[in-house]
Amino acid sequence: MHPTITAFERSPDRGRGLARDMRVRWALEEVGQPYAVRLLSFEAMQQPAHRALHPFGQIPTYEQDGLVLFESGAIVLHIARTHPGLLPGAPDARMRAVSWMFAALNTIEPPVFERALCVVLEQRTPWFAERLETLDKRVRQRLGELSLHLGQSPWLDGEFSAGNLLMLSVLLRVQGTPLLEAHPNLVEYLARGTARPAFQRAFEAQAEVFRQAQQAEALASAQASQAPPGQT
Amino acid sequence: MHPTITAFERSPDRGRGLARDMRVRWALEEVGQPYAVRLLSFEAMQQPAHRALHPFGQIPTYEQDGLVLFESGAIVLHIARTHPGLLPGAPDARMRAVSWMFAALNTIEPPVFERALCVVLEQRTPWFAERLETLDKRVRQRLGELSLHLGQSPWLDGEFSAGNLLMLSVLLRVQGTPLLEAHPNLVEYLARGTARPAFQRAFEAQAEVFRQAQQAEALASAQASQAPPGQT
Repeated sequence: MHPTITAFERSPDRGRGLARDMRVRWALEEVGQPYAVRLLSFEAMQQPAHRALHPFGQIPTYEQDGLVLFESGAIVLHIARTHPGLLPGAPDARMRAVSWMFAALNTIEPPVFERALCVVLEQRTPWFAERLETLDKRVRQRLGELSLHLGQSPWLDGEFSAGNLLMLSVLLRVQGTPLLEAHPNLVEYLARGTARPAFQRAFEAQAEVFRQAQQAEALASAQASQAPPGQT
Repeated sequence: MHPTITAFERSPDRGRGLARDMRVRWALEEVGQPYAVRLLSFEAMQQPAHRALHPFGQIPTYEQDGLVLFESGAIVLHIARTHPGLLPGAPDARMRAVSWMFAALNTIEPPVFERALCVVLEQRTPWFAERLETLDKRVRQRLGELSLHLGQSPWLDGEFSAGNLLMLSVLLRVQGTPLLEAHPNLVEYLARGTARPAFQRAFEAQAEVFRQAQQAEALASAQASQAPPGQT
């Protein structure tokens, strides 16, 4: 059976590819594994049925033949280990690619995500400018180190890998910002990643979910406004 | 050859077991793998020699027979996959343990670490109380979900595993706080983890590094104050 993943019925990022199902879709596209998607409302994510699959009530999950996984990093690692194409064959190179997976999620994503949270949640606070500068500084340091390490190589540590896939998924969050644009090699790295046909297919699939949710909402709203008075 | 890991010469946590070498030491102790430690000053961590091992100039690193790894999560996973004792044998259960490793580092550690950073860096700001409450709320939500999932089981998802080891390493940061003590089953879970002989040996080893650094500093300071005037 094909695996089934879960994703937002209506992603808060409005289909910009920042939700964490994107990285799982991308990995599945890279290895050519067809998959099914079960869309969840925010309400459904909190229900016991979903909590039984994901203890923290988040997306994505991954189900296949009785195996249930959560955490996008673990799911991408599972896909990479059960299909060729996302991890080098040599054991040492393989483990280094795994180091980059953890670096993406435990060293780069936390400051990048905190910055994104601050922009959304603290924009109207008196301390916004000062907090943002502190967070920008943390992100700048990490991106500077990443840029230095990447140098003129097309990918981190050899060929394209699950480590690159997760790192690029995290960099999407700072795409178009001065933080990323301070490093032309990282801008090119991200462009190289997002130009991959597998990325494009995954991106299109998650963007289509958002477009359809919007259309359905517009239709429902139009029908409601045309209802005769007295009917609700 | 035994592996060599790196650790702080003088840990900012004063030997409380919060630095990320602790989780690697613990994993090595659990599987009975002897190891060597190379201590690094903050200055040495920024030098090219260390940057060649760790692109982000952090500890720990792991070196063995030409293999160099960074990121504590990747190192623990490598130890768990090359020695028996930290991952179940059945493939599905093995991958679920890996899900818990990523959950510890990508779902629980970021809010817990942000809260710790805020307490250190923002305590004297006018917005401290408000920020801390926001961060506490995020940590509370995650610990509530973790507590609910753990229930009365001794460990997450079956036997003790690398997933539990990383989760417990993260919970150490909230040990003794009302955030953790709101959940008696998490307090017991942490007590069960820290009572393991392997944890005790690892904790003692890293605490000893700090004690020795303190003694050396006290000695140097005493010698300096006894130096005859005119000598520096």
